[in-house]
Order: sequence, then structure tokens, then C-alpha cells
Amino acid sequence: MNTKQKGNMPSKMGCVQTVQQLRTCTSVHKKQCGVMVWLFGGAVVNLGSAENYDRFYKPIQSLKFTGMFCMSERGHGTNVRGIETSAHYDASAQEFVINTPTPDAAKIFIGNALGGAYAAVFAQLYIDGKSKGPHCFIVPIRTEDGVCPGVQVQDMGMKEGLNGVDNGILSFDHVRIPRENLLSKYANVTASGQYETTIPSDGARFNITIAALVATRVALCFQAIGPTKLGLEIAIKYALQRRQFGNTGDGSEQLIMDYQTHQMRLMPKLATVLATTFATRYACQLLNDDVCGKVPLHQDRQMQALVAGLKAYTTWEAIDTLQICRECCGGQGFMEVNRLASLKRDADVFVTFEGDNTVLLQQVAKDLLAQYSSQFGGSKLKAVIHTLSANIKAKLQSGLKMLRNQNVTSIDYVLNALEFKQDLLLRNLAARLMNKVSSKREDPLSAWNDCLDHVSALSLAYVHQISLKKFVEAVKRCPEKDDKAVLNQFCLLYAMHLLYGERAWLLEQRYMTPVESKLIRDTYISLCRCTREHALSVVNAFCHPDNCVKAPIAGVVTTCDQWAYYPKSTQAKL
Amino acid sequence: MNTKQKGNMPSKMGCVQTVQQLRTCTSVHKKQCGVMVWLFGGAVVNLGSAENYDRFYKPIQSLKFTGMFCMSERGHGTNVRGIETSAHYDASAQEFVINTPTPDAAKIFIGNALGGAYAAVFAQLYIDGKSKGPHCFIVPIRTEDGVCPGVQVQDMGMKEGLNGVDNGILSFDHVRIPRENLLSKYANVTASGQYETTIPSDGARFNITIAALVATRVALCFQAIGPTKLGLEIAIKYALQRRQFGNTGDGSEQLIMDYQTHQMRLMPKLATVLATTFATRYACQLLNDDVCGKVPLHQDRQMQALVAGLKAYTTWEAIDTLQICRECCGGQGFMEVNRLASLKRDADVFVTFEGDNTVLLQQVAKDLLAQYSSQFGGSKLKAVIHTLSANIKAKLQSGLKMLRNQNVTSIDYVLNALEFKQDLLLRNLAARLMNKVSSKREDPLSAWNDCLDHVSALSLAYVHQISLKKFVEAVKRCPEKDDKAVLNQFCLLYAMHLLYGERAWLLEQRYMTPVESKLIRDTYISLCRCTREHALSVVNAFCHPDNCVKAPIAGVVTTCDQWAYYPKSTQAKL
Ligand SMILES: Cc1cc2nc3c(=O)[nH]c(=O)nc-3n(C[C@H](O)[C@H](O)[C@H](O)COP(=O)(O)OP(=O)(O)OC[C@H]3O[C@@H](n4cnc5c(N)ncnc54)[C@H](O)[C@@H]3O)c2cc1C
Ligand SMILES: Cc1cc2nc3c(=O)[nH]c(=O)nc-3n(C[C@H](O)[C@H](O)[C@H](O)COP(=O)(O)OP(=O)(O)OC[C@H]3O[C@@H](n4cnc5c(N)ncnc54)[C@H](O)[C@@H]3O)c2cc1C
Repeated sequence: MNTKQKGNMPSKMGCVQTVQQLRTCTSVHKKQCGVMVWLFGGAVVNLGSAENYDRFYKPIQSLKFTGMFCMSERGHGTNVRGIETSAHYDASAQEFVINTPTPDAAKIFIGNALGGAYAAVFAQLYIDGKSKGPHCFIVPIRTEDGVCPGVQVQDMGMKEGLNGVDNGILSFDHVRIPRENLLSKYANVTASGQYETTIPSDGARFNITIAALVATRVALCFQAIGPTKLGLEIAIKYALQRRQFGNTGDGSEQLIMDYQTHQMRLMPKLATVLATTFATRYACQLLNDDVCGKVPLHQDRQMQALVAGLKAYTTWEAIDTLQICRECCGGQGFMEVNRLASLKRDADVFVTFEGDNTVLLQQVAKDLLAQYSSQFGGSKLKAVIHTLSANIKAKLQSGLKMLRNQNVTSIDYVLNALEFKQDLLLRNLAARLMNKVSSKREDPLSAWNDCLDHVSALSLAYVHQISLKKFVEAVKRCPEKDDKAVLNQFCLLYAMHLLYGERAWLLEQRYMTPVESKLIRDTYISLCRCTREHALSVVNAFCHPDNCVKAPIAGVVTTCDQWAYYPKSTQAKL
Repeated sequence: MNTKQKGNMPSKMGCVQTVQQLRTCTSVHKKQCGVMVWLFGGAVVNLGSAENYDRFYKPIQSLKFTGMFCMSERGHGTNVRGIETSAHYDASAQEFVINTPTPDAAKIFIGNALGGAYAAVFAQLYIDGKSKGPHCFIVPIRTEDGVCPGVQVQDMGMKEGLNGVDNGILSFDHVRIPRENLLSKYANVTASGQYETTIPSDGARFNITIAALVATRVALCFQAIGPTKLGLEIAIKYALQRRQFGNTGDGSEQLIMDYQTHQMRLMPKLATVLATTFATRYACQLLNDDVCGKVPLHQDRQMQALVAGLKAYTTWEAIDTLQICRECCGGQGFMEVNRLASLKRDADVFVTFEGDNTVLLQQVAKDLLAQYSSQFGGSKLKAVIHTLSANIKAKLQSGLKMLRNQNVTSIDYVLNALEFKQDLLLRNLAARLMNKVSSKREDPLSAWNDCLDHVSALSLAYVHQISLKKFVEAVKRCPEKDDKAVLNQFCLLYAMHLLYGERAWLLEQRYMTPVESKLIRDTYISLCRCTREHALSVVNAFCHPDNCVKAPIAGVVTTCDQWAYYPKSTQAKL
């Protein structure tokens, strides 16, 4: 199989490509680069003026210094808007004074903290004693003489993974920086202390600040997909060598890859990582279009929802898949030399940083709701929803009749089912919220909180649906006939995997019948068996060089740990 | 809450009690003791004669030497029966010759390998050139002068967790041991080389050998439950301190424990660990009854099924729960000082060793099938199944009518639903297998393989059902009124958690209606909210001393890592 999908790769996204190439080296290097290029660099690119760019981005590109990204505080992680670090302007000196007013305001978990030269520090900008919300400032942390005066740095010790990146705590005791160190694309302070901005609303300005993370999140998706693929390659190559129990007729035992449970553990995960790859490439393309088309990232709500959802989906899939790979390799999977343990450890935090997954799913739903209500114009929403919720069942059910004639094991059926789920959940969510807030006069936040399970289900349905769509498109585009056939089988498996997971909800909605549900299970299981035949060619098509795979159980000989090599003879013919 | 359930603890199970007490120290100590007392010691107790016991168990009890347990080989892990290490009897010297004939026969992953004095080595016993199957021999590995002649030991390096236990590879080059070192409760070799056994069937004898692991597996359940409880205590205490987003009216943000998603992540896990605790205590009681009543372990198939199922259930729950706890603590959960990472790492291998979970679920199903067919007498099984499968739907459905009047959110309904699932899956499995093997003449192993998904579902339904039953009994027994009310709420949550997980299958079987299914979801969510109020009293009732909890985010101050302490002030009033 020869899946060079490079044609998909937007040429301008050099950084994303770098991350894709880096994805199979140790996560630590990726993360160090990530902090520097994506986080620090991304802040400068997205929030900085042309002068900011020249002063702070260009040197980073040529690795002249190490950057840090100081957003999280002890008291405020996911809730960035609540940060307490302060920036007061001193007009007499034309300087900002950066300060950590409380222990909870200390910048925590900061990557490269033990060695970085400059930090992009998010702080509440105070003008005339009133906060204008979080703004981003470049603060020098270290010179050749050591840590700058007023800055305190503390090591945070060992972590579950990514220990090659030093994370630390930074705090500032009235540290002075030049006025020009405010990243001033959207807001600036004049020499005399006047606040000027092109975005008058505090909320909108905050959203722009946060939109700076969008590109980083796309990169993180690839960072999550990388180890997932590696883990699958290791587990699948081992499963195609390792025999246990049974008798295949020639006296040898059965390959563990031939056990139904093993196929059901690994094949859907392999299909899923293909789906998330195509979906992330799509997000990359959109990002590129925006960047090249000069559409400000924060205005593209569709992309915000997509990227937030994909970040949650790919990172949760990464840790789930790697865990399954570990278990599928039995005792060997537990040995460091076989890589799975460290891949797991390093990937684990992906679900937490650059947007906690649980909170990101809320972001997705909010963006979907915003798109939805913008169709009607905000104020009319209530009436519209009212009508809609009365009609929706009937409408959707008349649509249903049509679907009845569709084969439940076809991809179109699955796409329709997922769309149905997303639509119904979205409309019902809007209706539930309106009812709680408008009719019952509940507090909006507590109304939202009461719907969180609903919210997560909606967001996942959305991202599953996009992923399947992008998989289908990738199959269509595939130029080689044999590859296309294989890819199509995996696409069908992915579809059945999603449908199998949704069957409770779809049965509940009477969207599918019990008989259909059983048929889906049978199809799902048999697709796991059929795709197993192509598992090796797919993982080989990932084109990981041996020195990236490195695991003896995947047939890569190491010079140390000779005991670990499996099988015992020379480089495996698989 | 004051849940002293000591009354449940069978007094004769001293070792299990020790493990329970050890369960909150580091897993490494438990595992070292586990290998020594449970594995090595268990082999001697279960397979040894009175003389074996005096020579090899008594000194272990007083920690006179360190034992090892050498069952797994490079080529055969889960499939113990396939091991290749050989034991030939040399009548002239009255010695056994223990040998590693191939690289695949090397004993691998052996705990305490780098320091242990004696090993319980499983080897094929050859009499007149024919193997009598695996038997267990005590082989001296080290004296004060170092490793014994003919024995080779190799370190296996770093592992994901449990690095305090040295795992290594042992191989034997015609190592000679006295005849008396065969553990000879069930089979012996006379001085002249005659094989004598009370169990003529090779298969039955092998089952006895393996039954030696039953007690260890019960201990392992407790070892898995220990860190699960610790993890929940840490995550719940943090969630009751940590605020993020929102506004509770007094200006402070909302406790993360008050988010619906947070409740749904943690509360069902807390309910589940209570359920598995009660179920494991029950297994412990059965084990005690057998041991005291002198029922040979291998004859009690019900207990074998229970213990195999519980081992799989508790260990998978452990890693799943710890992962959730890690994620629920955000970035803090990733820091080593907060313990969750190391708890996860050490617990991870529990799903693999002492019986791989996926394979154990097959064991459960086999034991259930054996019990089931023994009701009818083996040979008549076919006819019976035939009749049954014709009648079963009708029968069960008439039973169903009765249930229709039951409240779907009652525990009785759930118990009935789980029993229905187990019964139907069991009978259908028997029928499917009979059909494949007898009518279609398929190879039995491949027929079995085709049913593995069915098999796993059956086994899990069985262990869920027992766990719920034992939880219900524990509630009934609870002497204090307030405790009983709290426990009852968690029991109901556990029931809804199981039912919610089974709803796809139950809808498929038309056992429940879509309307009922929605009601179950609502009840489930609202129980997560109600039990949240008692979460703290439940984790406090685990009675973990502070020096076992140790995590700063759980409110335990540490002398090092002062930065980590959360909240910032003095010892938390929770
Ligand atoms: C290894 C590592 C490297 C990092 N590097 C950097 C860096 O370089 N720069 C930087 O600025 N930061 C960095 N961070 C910080 C990281 O971004 C934060 O940990 C992350 O934003 C989560 O914040 P928190 O840890 O405060 O968790 P919290 O926000 O306190 O969340 C804790 C839990 O509460 C839940 N929760 C919170 N709010 C809600 C809600 N509204 N609804 C439902 N559930 C909710 C979350 O799901 C989570 O499970 C790093 C963290 C780690 C671990
Ligand atoms: C830290 C550690 C400590 C250990 N300590 C000891 C010790 O002290 N003494 C000792 O004797 N051993 C020890 N072991 C070995 C342990 O018991 C084995 O790893 C375990 O039995 C699994 O065997 P395996 O690794 O060969 O996996 P395999 O049996 O090769 O299994 C690999 C995968 O194949 C799957 N599989 C295998 N057979 C089937 C089937 N029939 N159907 C479906 N799926 C199947 C499994 O689910 C698993 O995912 C230890 C292992 C570790 C990691």
C-alpha cells in the first residue's frame, strides 16, 4: 500500500509539516518545539503587530532564543479569563509593570521555565484602575547573567511524562518592560497611556486572544495521532508474530491477531486513526485558507468548533488506543524497551493542556449553537426554536421514512444517522436552554451545567460526523485502485464502529430497529476480521523509519536489551 | 460515615488481610510480598505435601528467604500448558534434572529474579520420555555464594511501573534438584521413577495446578481496589477544593465537583469500587469456606468463575478509574507529587499478569458453560439446548410480562435485567457452539473463537450481576441507619450505571422500551448529583491515613514540593 497523501498538505503550513515529521521522535522534543514555536511564536504571530513580529518571531524561527508561554495560573487553568497577573502602565517611564499580586496568580506548569529567555505572559491590563481583560506581553526572563530581577522561578519536579520539558512556576514582583512589549495587533496603549483598540467589546477581544491557540491545537492533533500510529504499528506487528494457544494445523499455535477479541481491540482503533488523520488534515487546510485568505481566526466559528472537537477526540483516542496496544502486547507491552509505556505517559497530558477536553467539548457546542442561532438572528431564536421543536420530530421522521430503504450497513446510512443525531441534539439543546432560562428563569450557568451530558454528546456526534465525512472524501480521492479498496474497507469499519457505539441512542429514538442493531453488530465483527488482512500494509504505509519505531517486539533489533527481541531470529519478515 | 465492615472478613484469611492493609503502601512492596507469599507460597500450600509445606512454606512465613514464581516462559505466557521447561527424573541419583531446552523456554518476567533464593518452577515432567504435563518444582537459585551453577539470570530493565520489583529471565542448564523438591500433593515420582497420582486425567491435573492461582487472584483484586480507592479519594478531595469558572453568588467560582460532567466521571466509579469491594469480600469468604471445609479449590467451579471474573473486572476498573481521576485533576493530576501517575503505572500490569483479563473472561464463560451443562448431564446437552433455545424467548418473555410492572429504576429491575442477559447469553452461546461444532462440523477452537465477543459479554454480565447482588446484601446488613441510607444511594447509582451501560443490548432484546431507556438516563444523572453530597464521607470512610494518601491536592501537606500544596492555606477543612 502506498498512501502518500502529501498532496493534501497545505504548502504554507510549514510548521504543521514540521510537527508531522517530528511526531515520531520523542514527544519531549515536539513539546519543547511546541512551546517555543506554536505557543510563544503563535502568540506573537496572532496577537502581535508587524514590529512585534520582527522583534520576537524572527529570532525564534532561527532558534536564537527559547520562548515560554505563560497563560495558566495556579488559580486559573482552563478559565483563562479569570487570571490575576496584572499589567499596569507607567506613562512616566513608558513601561508596563507586570506583577503577581497573589499566590494564586503565579504562572504554573510553564514549559521551558528552567531555561527560557523570553515569555509571552498573559496579564490583566489595567487602565485607570479598570481591567481591560487579558492581554499578552513579552517579558524577558533570563539574560546571560541569569534570571532577571523581580522574576522568581521554581521547578515543579517530576511529572508523569514529558520530563525532558522543564515545567516550572514563574512569578513577577513588579517587573518593568518597555511599552513596545505589549502584543498590539488588536489593542495598544499610547505613550501617554491611552487605550486604543479595534475591538471595543471585552468579550470579543478575549475571544481573539484565545483564538491564538487554534493553530497550536491543530498541531497537537497531529502530535496525538503520531504516537497513536506508532503504538498501533508496534501492537499489530507483534500480534502478527506472537502465537498463543490453539493449533493452526501445522503444529504452531494461533497468531494472537487471529483472535476475534484481538481484532476487535485493534482494528477499529486503526480505522479511527485514519479517520482522525484525514479530519485533521482538513482542519489544517481550513486553517491555511484562513491564514492565506487573511480571515481572522476568531471569526471562523466553524473552524473553532472543528479544531476544539478534533483536539478532544484525537487526544482521547490517543490515550485509549495506546492503552489497548499496551494490553494487547501482554507482559512485553509493560517493558520500557517496547515503547508503549512511554508513548502513553507522554500523550496523557494532551487531554488536559491547550484546552481541557471536557471544557473544549462545551466550546464546540457553544460554537454550534452560535452558528445555529445566527441562521435566525439572535432575538428571534426563541420563537424559532419553539416552532422547530414542535415540528422537528415530525420533520425528521418523514426524512426517516426515506432512510428506511437504505441499507443500515452502508456508509450513507451512518452519515445520515450521525447527522440526525447532531441535528436533534442541537435543536433539543437550544430548546432546553431556552426553556430553562426564559420560561423557568433559571440562572444561565446552572441551566448550562444541567445540560453538560447533552452538550458533550452533541459535540462528539459533530466531530464523529466530520471525521467520517473526511474519511469518505479521502477514499474517493485515492488514486490507486487497490489502495482505494483497502481504504474503503477501513472507512466502512470506522462507520460501523461509530454506529455500533451510537446504537443505544438510535434505538432509543426508534431510528433503528432491534433487528437492524443486531445486523450492525454482525457486520462490525466481520469487518474487524476482514480488515485484519490489511493491517500490516496499513501500518507499513505510515512509513515510520525503524529508528522511530525502535520496539523489539515490532521486529526492530536493538543493540541493547537483546533478550527483548521478538521473534528471536533476524529482522522479521512479516 | 462509619463503615467498619470488618465483620465480613473471614478470620482465617490472614494473608488477604495483610494484603488489604498493605494495599495503600506502595504497590512495589505489595508485589514483592505477593510474589513471595501468594505465588511462591501459594504454590507450596496448594500443590505441596505436608513435608513440602514444612520445608518451604514455614521459612517463607518468617521471611527466612525470598521466593520466586517461575511459570511464564518467553514462548508461553497465558498459555501455561504449553511451557517447555523440562524435568527429567534421574533414578540413579534420585534427582530431577531441570532444563531450558530452547530460548522460548526461558522463564521470563520473573519477579524477585535478581535476588530470590528459591523458585517454584513449572516444568513439563517427563516419565519414560512422555510428558505428564506441567508440575511444580522448588529450585534453589542463590546461596550466599551467589547464583547456583547451571542457573542463568538476566535483568529485564525498566518497566512501566513496579520498578522496585526486579523482573528477570531465568534459564536452567540441566540443574539437578532432589526428588523431594517436586511439590507432590497430587502427583509424585517414587525413588525408582514410578509416576503416582490421585488424578489420572492430565487435563484435570493441569486444572489443579492452575487452581493454585485462585487465592492470588483474590488478593490481586484487593490490590487493584486499594489504589482505585486512593485515586478516588485524591480526585474527590481536590474537586471539593478546586474552583474554576462560574460564580456561586458569593464571588467565588464554582467547585469543579459541581459540574455535571465531573459528577458523572467520578460518582459511578466511586459506586463501582464499593461494589467490587463487597464482591471481592464475598469471594474471600467462599475461598475461606473452601479452605476450611477442605474442598479442593479446583472442584469449586463457581468460585473459579467468580474469581476469574472479578480479577478482570476489578483490574480494568482500577486502570480506568485512575485514568479518570488523573484527568479530573487537570494539570495537577499529571504531577508525580500528586500520586495518580504512579498509581496508574503500577496498576497497569494487573490486567495482564496472574491471568490476562481477555483470556480470563473466556475462563469465566467456560466455567459457566460447565455448570450449565452439568445440570443436564453432558451428553443430553444438545437435545436440551435445542428445546431450550426454542422455548427460551417465549419463557423469558412471559417472565417479562411480570417485570413490566416493575419500576425500571428499581434495583430489582436491574437485577432481573442482568440475570436475563446472563441467562440468554449463556443459553445462546451453548446453542451457537453446539450448532457450529455438531451440525456444521466446525473445528471447536475456531467455533469458540467466532464467539469471543459473545463470550466476553456473558462473563461481564455475570460478574456485574454478582457485584450488584453483593452490594445489595451489604446495604441490607449495614447496621447504622444513616450509613445504610447513603450506601443505598450508591447501590442504586451502581445499578443505574450498569443498566445505562446495558441499554443498547436491552433495547435490542426489546427488554426495555425507548421511553424507559430515557428515564434511566435521567435517573442516572440525577443520582450522580445526589451521591456527590456524600462523596466526601465515603472516601473518608476508607480510613486511609494521611501518610498513605500523601497527595498535596488531597489536602495533605508535604515537606518537599511546597509549591504543590493545594489549597494554599492550612490543612483543609473539607
Ligand atoms: C505538562 C504540562 C505542561 C504545561 N505547559 C503549559 C505552558 O507551557 N503554558 C501554560 O500557560 N500552561 C501550561 N500548562 C497548563 C495547562 O494548560 C493547564 O493544566 C490546563 O489548562 C488545565 O488547567 P488546570 O490544570 O488548572 O485544570 P482545571 O481548569 O482546574 O480543571 C480541573 C478539572 O476540572 C474540570 N473542569 C474545569 N472547568 C470545568 C467546567 N467549566 N466544566 C466542566 N468541567 C470543568 C476539567 O475538566 C478538569 O478535569 C501545562 C500543563 C501541564 C500538565
Ligand atoms: C511486571 C510483570 C511481572 C510478572 N511477574 C511474573 C512472575 O513473577 N512469574 C511469572 O511466572 N510470570 C510473571 N509475569 C508474566 C505474566 O504472567 C505474563 O505476562 C502474562 O501471563 C501474559 O503472558 P504474555 O505476556 O506472554 O502475553 P500473551 O499470552 O502472549 O498475550 C498477549 C496478548 O494476546 C492476547 N491473547 C492471548 N491468548 C489469547 C486467547 N486465547 N484469546 C484471546 N486473546 C488472547 C492477550 O489478551 C494479550 O493481549 C509478569 C509479567 C509482568 C509484566
